[in-house]
Amino acid sequence: MAAAPKAAVLLSGGLDSATCLAIARDQGFEPCALSFRYGQRHAVELAAARRIARSFEVTRHEFVDIDLRPFGGSALTDAAIPVPKDNQSGRPQAGIPVTYVPARNTIFLSFALAFAEVLPADDIFIGVNALDYSGYPDCRPDYVAAFQALADLATRAAAENGRRITIHAPLIAMTKARIIATGQALGVDYGLTVSCYDPGSGGEACGRCDACALRLAGFAEAGLRDPATYMTG
Amino acid sequence: MAAAPKAAVLLSGGLDSATCLAIARDQGFEPCALSFRYGQRHAVELAAARRIARSFEVTRHEFVDIDLRPFGGSALTDAAIPVPKDNQSGRPQAGIPVTYVPARNTIFLSFALAFAEVLPADDIFIGVNALDYSGYPDCRPDYVAAFQALADLATRAAAENGRRITIHAPLIAMTKARIIATGQALGVDYGLTVSCYDPGSGGEACGRCDACALRLAGFAEAGLRDPATYMTG
Repeated sequence: MAAAPKAAVLLSGGLDSATCLAIARDQGFEPCALSFRYGQRHAVELAAARRIARSFEVTRHEFVDIDLRPFGGSALTDAAIPVPKDNQSGRPQAGIPVTYVPARNTIFLSFALAFAEVLPADDIFIGVNALDYSGYPDCRPDYVAAFQALADLATRAAAENGRRITIHAPLIAMTKARIIATGQALGVDYGLTVSCYDPGSGGEACGRCDACALRLAGFAEAGLRDPATYMTG
Repeated sequence: MAAAPKAAVLLSGGLDSATCLAIARDQGFEPCALSFRYGQRHAVELAAARRIARSFEVTRHEFVDIDLRPFGGSALTDAAIPVPKDNQSGRPQAGIPVTYVPARNTIFLSFALAFAEVLPADDIFIGVNALDYSGYPDCRPDYVAAFQALADLATRAAAENGRRITIHAPLIAMTKARIIATGQALGVDYGLTVSCYDPGSGGEACGRCDACALRLAGFAEAGLRDPATYMTG
């Protein structure tokens, strides 16, 4: 039996990337996970990423230190900007919110490209979602297609052998409810994941930020109970 | 008098990026420099970047820590791979050399995009060169065009206002000799720059790696003396 081909999987510790990892494995890949310490407030995400990778017996999990704090400009990296709370609609608000981190997915995909080159792997998985997302520009299908075009020119393999690294964004057109149902069927333990933008030190979710609101609405719509721990019980 | 518009300039401490900074300033921009500590062997480059920025009275110079060592795969980041020496032709050899760092320019441009978003700046300068370069895939005009297409979709400004961040690669079609002559005319002190892939601890160049060979041939062709210090005197 041939060994499964490797795939580089971006793993944040959230619900979406955990589902993405499960999908990569289900599609026959050996997932190699890539996580970032990027000066974000919610370092508990990284502990979650570690737990998720372990639960799927991921053999290679790299953590890359990058510091986005010099750039500021986001509630997720700049302690001076508060995380918005209590948008109770369960739907994103108009406009791009202050939790947008400038160029984050571009930076993450760039590192994934480096990771894929050295693994080597011909496949990258990213859990971006254009439907129930928070309005971020770098979660749209056009954006992913543009990164694909860039990847087709950027690597040694592309230049030397015309070998293509494919960017997979399997969640891009799914509702949050469908993401959850898919992951559930593939064995994701959502109790291990952290979605909250502003979790407590023990990893408990605030239940009030946009990410929590989207997650809770997704579980409700899927008819499932969210196993995460919330501050408000 | 209106303030000069800001531009994000990638500054490595080498000859090309120093020239690029001078060109950005000459074009009427206020250059804001961005340098990386990326686990490279030649940290002396960073001291050079600092000197160059100071010589041009750059008011904002950010240093970003990123660690490419987990990925390995390059003589510039992996101490186990020796830097090739004594290609005496003064021209690149066939194929992509071991000094290629996977996805490096993609990663650098991604950070520049974040930097431009928060400055804010509508312009990014990168000193890539497709002519006298070392055969790197991410130095070609097609590559820069693909990154431009990505940038047009990736940012908050692009999504909200259709504001475009322009990637400038003014050196892309220049010979090394023309780059040097251009920089000289714009006041670049090349004695401050470091091009060597394997410099001594005092910043003195080896004179034998591909980067030194290209640089020396460029100065010779421009009819100028290289003010850098070489180990061999």
